[in-house]
Amino acid sequence: MSGLRPRAVLSKSKAIDFGVTMRKAGDQTPREDQIMRTRAAVAIQAGKPLEIMEVNLDGPREGEVLVEMKATGICHTDEFTLSGADPEGLFPAILGHEGAGIVVDVGPGVTTLKKGDHVIPLYTPECRECEYCLNPKTNLCQSIRSTQGQGLMPDGTSRFSTLDGDPILHYMGCSTFANHSVLPEIALAKVREDAPFDKICYIGCGVTTGIGAVINTAKVEIGSRAIVFGLGGIGLNVIQGLRLAGADQIVGVDLNPSKVEMATRFGMTDFVNPSEIDGDLVAYLVNLTKGGADYTFDATGNVGVMRTALESAHKGWGESIIIGVAPAGAEISTRPFQLVTGRSWRGTAFGGARGRTDVPKIVDWYMDGKIEIDPMITHTMGLDDINKGFDLMHAGESIRSVVVY
Amino acid sequence: MSGLRPRAVLSKSKAIDFGVTMRKAGDQTPREDQIMRTRAAVAIQAGKPLEIMEVNLDGPREGEVLVEMKATGICHTDEFTLSGADPEGLFPAILGHEGAGIVVDVGPGVTTLKKGDHVIPLYTPECRECEYCLNPKTNLCQSIRSTQGQGLMPDGTSRFSTLDGDPILHYMGCSTFANHSVLPEIALAKVREDAPFDKICYIGCGVTTGIGAVINTAKVEIGSRAIVFGLGGIGLNVIQGLRLAGADQIVGVDLNPSKVEMATRFGMTDFVNPSEIDGDLVAYLVNLTKGGADYTFDATGNVGVMRTALESAHKGWGESIIIGVAPAGAEISTRPFQLVTGRSWRGTAFGGARGRTDVPKIVDWYMDGKIEIDPMITHTMGLDDINKGFDLMHAGESIRSVVVY
Repeated sequence: MSGLRPRAVLSKSKAIDFGVTMRKAGDQTPREDQIMRTRAAVAIQAGKPLEIMEVNLDGPREGEVLVEMKATGICHTDEFTLSGADPEGLFPAILGHEGAGIVVDVGPGVTTLKKGDHVIPLYTPECRECEYCLNPKTNLCQSIRSTQGQGLMPDGTSRFSTLDGDPILHYMGCSTFANHSVLPEIALAKVREDAPFDKICYIGCGVTTGIGAVINTAKVEIGSRAIVFGLGGIGLNVIQGLRLAGADQIVGVDLNPSKVEMATRFGMTDFVNPSEIDGDLVAYLVNLTKGGADYTFDATGNVGVMRTALESAHKGWGESIIIGVAPAGAEISTRPFQLVTGRSWRGTAFGGARGRTDVPKIVDWYMDGKIEIDPMITHTMGLDDINKGFDLMHAGESIRSVVVY
Repeated sequence: MSGLRPRAVLSKSKAIDFGVTMRKAGDQTPREDQIMRTRAAVAIQAGKPLEIMEVNLDGPREGEVLVEMKATGICHTDEFTLSGADPEGLFPAILGHEGAGIVVDVGPGVTTLKKGDHVIPLYTPECRECEYCLNPKTNLCQSIRSTQGQGLMPDGTSRFSTLDGDPILHYMGCSTFANHSVLPEIALAKVREDAPFDKICYIGCGVTTGIGAVINTAKVEIGSRAIVFGLGGIGLNVIQGLRLAGADQIVGVDLNPSKVEMATRFGMTDFVNPSEIDGDLVAYLVNLTKGGADYTFDATGNVGVMRTALESAHKGWGESIIIGVAPAGAEISTRPFQLVTGRSWRGTAFGGARGRTDVPKIVDWYMDGKIEIDPMITHTMGLDDINKGFDLMHAGESIRSVVVY
């Protein structure tokens, strides 16, 4: 909780159930009639299950938008924070960053969204004005990073609080584990209204991360050979990104042979189970890809696998992209000779996507049948059962669980 | 000496002093009248000074060219091999890979060079036919790599031998520490005839490696900020490459303040001596470059410095290029977060240059005054004094010593 500035203005107050009221432009002081009550799964402390409860939610301030969440995926990053492994994790907070919903109200100064718009929250915003947004080489908009990292809105306060008025933190600027949430306008992608919330919520993280790593970060060319390490949700999306990009060979690497059927469906051409390989895995993969892959992707978060991924990239031009998040303090290593002989080691966050620009396109691809999402949504549940989604993840039984509000 | 196939055909014979004779096309068996004698500095074994002696040199075979060397630089890579630190070093060999000379004779099938042409030997050849040459992403022509690595010509034999007929190995396909050498046609860049040999020999390695790292590998844009670690010969050439590319800020980092004057002359705008920095060097450099450099270059070969170079690159888009050759077994490491947040780790060999295509252009740049070489040639000597060049390198007194034949 260090770093959290207590909200100065919100007194313990009776909130109005789901009521959304008008507000005067420029009025930045929350009034009782701007406070609504909504249901949320709250991460009270690390290592404990989420607690489903009613919470207070202030209305949107300058540049902010109130969204009614319709669905949210449960991602490994939520689990990473909830478990306590995330050194930057803060509590109590409302987790969740993979949502889809409808705009209910907008704060003063909001010009690009209006009530009724369908939106996907963006944990990587796109302000289109900062040094990062204006540099075509990156998608890492920094305009609200500092407050977002502290679990706060850009003005340094939280919109969430307990019914007793104690502040609850936001998470990744999204907090999609609440039926309603307030987000900055720049952290919402407007999407078409005929797309189903319970599927496109996955575009808010996993789909875009995997496909974007291929298309935006690696810029894979038609005819490429690629290796994907880890055939979980991200890996599957990398694979379908590779298929979309026209890769000739798509090798999947995973210790779990039960992943083969789904990965094949998404475009995998060759499966390698490292436990079944005699000798050096790198040598095996280099041989399988006729000299090494043009592109390799780590979707495991294991730093040993990251090294294998780099070294199985082709001499001269192979690029290896790190997608997975490693444990705190873990380090990657290799001999510099691997780089001097032409391999590149890179990483990607949110698939290199500029959310407001790129996410609506990916929704279109889904609606046009260019990419698949439905088979990856293996479980759906109500908010009350959200902890079951985490259990399924731990058991390795789900690709993606989605909470439908 | 393992891996060296003894020459099958060359008997111990009396060679003709510097005599070059005609040869029938297709005749691949050396005859006595095709053997000449030349002077060379021979690396008899690791850790010993070079021995100046007369050696036998067979004439050029199919696709090969006999070159009279006019000058050669003494590079750290020669020292690396001579010292015994190079795990791939083979002895006895004629070292040297940074030369310039004149074509004396050509073997059968040679079409792009003729007697009298001025040439620079290429330790990275350019066959224009292999998978690598046909891929625009790399310069690492592989067509003769296997034999070159064994110290042999492409047909698997050596042209050099002692006067007693014992084979002497080639080195990096060049062996410029001999007054005459035989090289594959694809390992020679034809250059203009008005360029001075004792300066352009440096383009055979150091100049091209440094400038090429900037232009070919990093593709530095006008207005970039850059940091160069290590202000030796390679570092100076990186700096003048950055100036040529229009970089706005060129930070040089070196523990030796005596490097400042020369580096400033070549374009350095800021000097940082790590021994004078309190606290974290990365933080200091990030601050100096307003958030990190767009491009950083390691020209030290120190894996700790390589990490500093990566981490002082700008979040989101900074690229770090490894030029230096690390000690055998040394590894680079970092947290993967450094890459996931947008930094790229790459390497370069021979500055990403395709030698036959790019080296003549760099000679033109020198002759046109776009780049400087003369101030970096701090010492010249005859072949008999070549070991003094190594001494000057060890003492840190030279930037580049050049042997003039």
